[in-house]
Amino acid sequence: MNKLPTQMRAILLEQYQEDVYEAINGLKVVQRPLPSPRHGQVLVKIEAAPCNPSDLLHLQGKYGVRKTLPAVPGWEGAGTVVASGGGWLGGWLKGKRVACGAQGDSDGTWAEYFVADAKACIPLKRRLPIEQASSMIVNPLTAMGLLDMARHSGHRAAVHTAGASQLGRMLLPMSKEAGIPLINVVRRGAQVELLRSLGAEHVLNSSDADFDDQFQSVSAELHATVAFEAVAGDLSGTVINLMPPSSTVYVYGALSEEACGNIDPIELIFRDKTVTGFYLGKWLQSRSLLRTLRATGRVQRMLIDGRIATKFQRVDSLAEAVDGLQHYANNMTEGKVLLKPDSR
Amino acid sequence: MNKLPTQMRAILLEQYQEDVYEAINGLKVVQRPLPSPRHGQVLVKIEAAPCNPSDLLHLQGKYGVRKTLPAVPGWEGAGTVVASGGGWLGGWLKGKRVACGAQGDSDGTWAEYFVADAKACIPLKRRLPIEQASSMIVNPLTAMGLLDMARHSGHRAAVHTAGASQLGRMLLPMSKEAGIPLINVVRRGAQVELLRSLGAEHVLNSSDADFDDQFQSVSAELHATVAFEAVAGDLSGTVINLMPPSSTVYVYGALSEEACGNIDPIELIFRDKTVTGFYLGKWLQSRSLLRTLRATGRVQRMLIDGRIATKFQRVDSLAEAVDGLQHYANNMTEGKVLLKPDSR
Repeated sequence: MNKLPTQMRAILLEQYQEDVYEAINGLKVVQRPLPSPRHGQVLVKIEAAPCNPSDLLHLQGKYGVRKTLPAVPGWEGAGTVVASGGGWLGGWLKGKRVACGAQGDSDGTWAEYFVADAKACIPLKRRLPIEQASSMIVNPLTAMGLLDMARHSGHRAAVHTAGASQLGRMLLPMSKEAGIPLINVVRRGAQVELLRSLGAEHVLNSSDADFDDQFQSVSAELHATVAFEAVAGDLSGTVINLMPPSSTVYVYGALSEEACGNIDPIELIFRDKTVTGFYLGKWLQSRSLLRTLRATGRVQRMLIDGRIATKFQRVDSLAEAVDGLQHYANNMTEGKVLLKPDSR
Repeated sequence: MNKLPTQMRAILLEQYQEDVYEAINGLKVVQRPLPSPRHGQVLVKIEAAPCNPSDLLHLQGKYGVRKTLPAVPGWEGAGTVVASGGGWLGGWLKGKRVACGAQGDSDGTWAEYFVADAKACIPLKRRLPIEQASSMIVNPLTAMGLLDMARHSGHRAAVHTAGASQLGRMLLPMSKEAGIPLINVVRRGAQVELLRSLGAEHVLNSSDADFDDQFQSVSAELHATVAFEAVAGDLSGTVINLMPPSSTVYVYGALSEEACGNIDPIELIFRDKTVTGFYLGKWLQSRSLLRTLRATGRVQRMLIDGRIATKFQRVDSLAEAVDGLQHYANNMTEGKVLLKPDSR
């Protein structure tokens, strides 16, 4: 293994700013001392790290986890384990390619090197390209986690309220493989066409005048008693109110940036309904290692054979990151932005 | 046992009407054939049956359970079992005084006779007056059920959002006996005084400018991770947003007649919070008979020794019921109205 440098380049967030463009403009590329992994941690040389919507929310201080600033942003990435702080797992991971996620109040992945919990590293299959590996946690593994949770809780069909999102498109083949019919809710006619062209069977447009009737009837017919809710606002209530008795809505995102509302108390009390949250970090902790490995294995196979894929609109070096992120904030539907610390 | 009549007097609801006064005015006192209990059912000669807020909601068609009309209203009552439709329990109950609740789409308690499920009858202790027995289910047993559920789920302290309600006042001695500190939320200064005079330790006024800070700090200090929510509307969100991580809000009423809202999705996702419903009928079904008997025994002892009591503002015959209910709808805080079919 090559000798490690003493310094690294990293993107630094010094201040949360509500305006996303100001937040991005405030980012700096700095030289920092190379961090040292502690026991149970490893040092990952980052090859690729994406920007997700949750990263933009974090720059604005709106994400559920806030860090002590200044800190390095970036919730996920992939690279090679170049050092271990101790522990059998860290030793075993050394030299391996991994995907890794950042948790809590510590530096993130938008840097040349990243300290990861060894337990939170996913060893990569040889044929998985580093680009797809770098973004396999926030979207693909969340999608797999939602389906795994639904299946293990005995639900026969599921609702997804952000059908046209990247995660929504990944859910299409995943739900088929899991044998869980999926009701995809979208907001526009063009998205209905898009999802149908991708093989989706049940697509409902929430802008349709008869959406409520359609949704109630399809969810009853399929016994869809679980919803994956990424929009929040009044849609949370619309969905729970119209679903069959004993339904649970798992809120995992808040694209509308609004509070969940419009929830009929009668439905909660008399129809045994529940609104709660889904957080990948907690789901991963609640699973056995074997079940987690199975889930990450399934995700990697689907990424390798192209059944699911993260779309990138551009690849940037750390120096170009501010430009790339501004572009991303303006055109999020065109695909994510991928940061590659090694590119110049 | 005396020979049973072939006819009985009953109050009949022919049509749900949104306006509560029109709904009450539409009630009729009619002669009906005496109903026959089937296997597993008993016939109860009703001595007293109260009008609760949930009865008024039902007359308006706003309650969670709707009946096929025309039907007899009334969700609870007490009297003597005068006939059994068969089954060991019904036979054992014959001649006994019982409290009984109406369930689902069948005739209720506002009549001279009522057909009850034998399993849903609570045999009464000798010293319990029939007036208190007649209203021991909707308020006292719900309060006991909420506390029992909280204790069995491992919660260390609880929040109640309708502190000054009749149920709220019953929760005060019950929570002390259960060893679960209670944070009582009320809307007016006078209610703070009232609850303090009844021995409540933690009373917060949601109209105070610093309510949010007070509530957050007290609920964190006491580890209050469960709330009994009877108001709905934005209060559901305020409460769940401010409670400690891993909290659950059980909505059991909707005094505001508004949808639950203002629920921060970040709190659901990242702080492991849940909003769901509590329905006494379901709670009773989920319990073992022994645990139910223990709970009803505790409730009866507290009613007998006066630690809890339902307050009545007037007692009416069936013929006077419309007058009494109109008065109740205008002055619900003065106490319930009790119907006594035998009085003239």
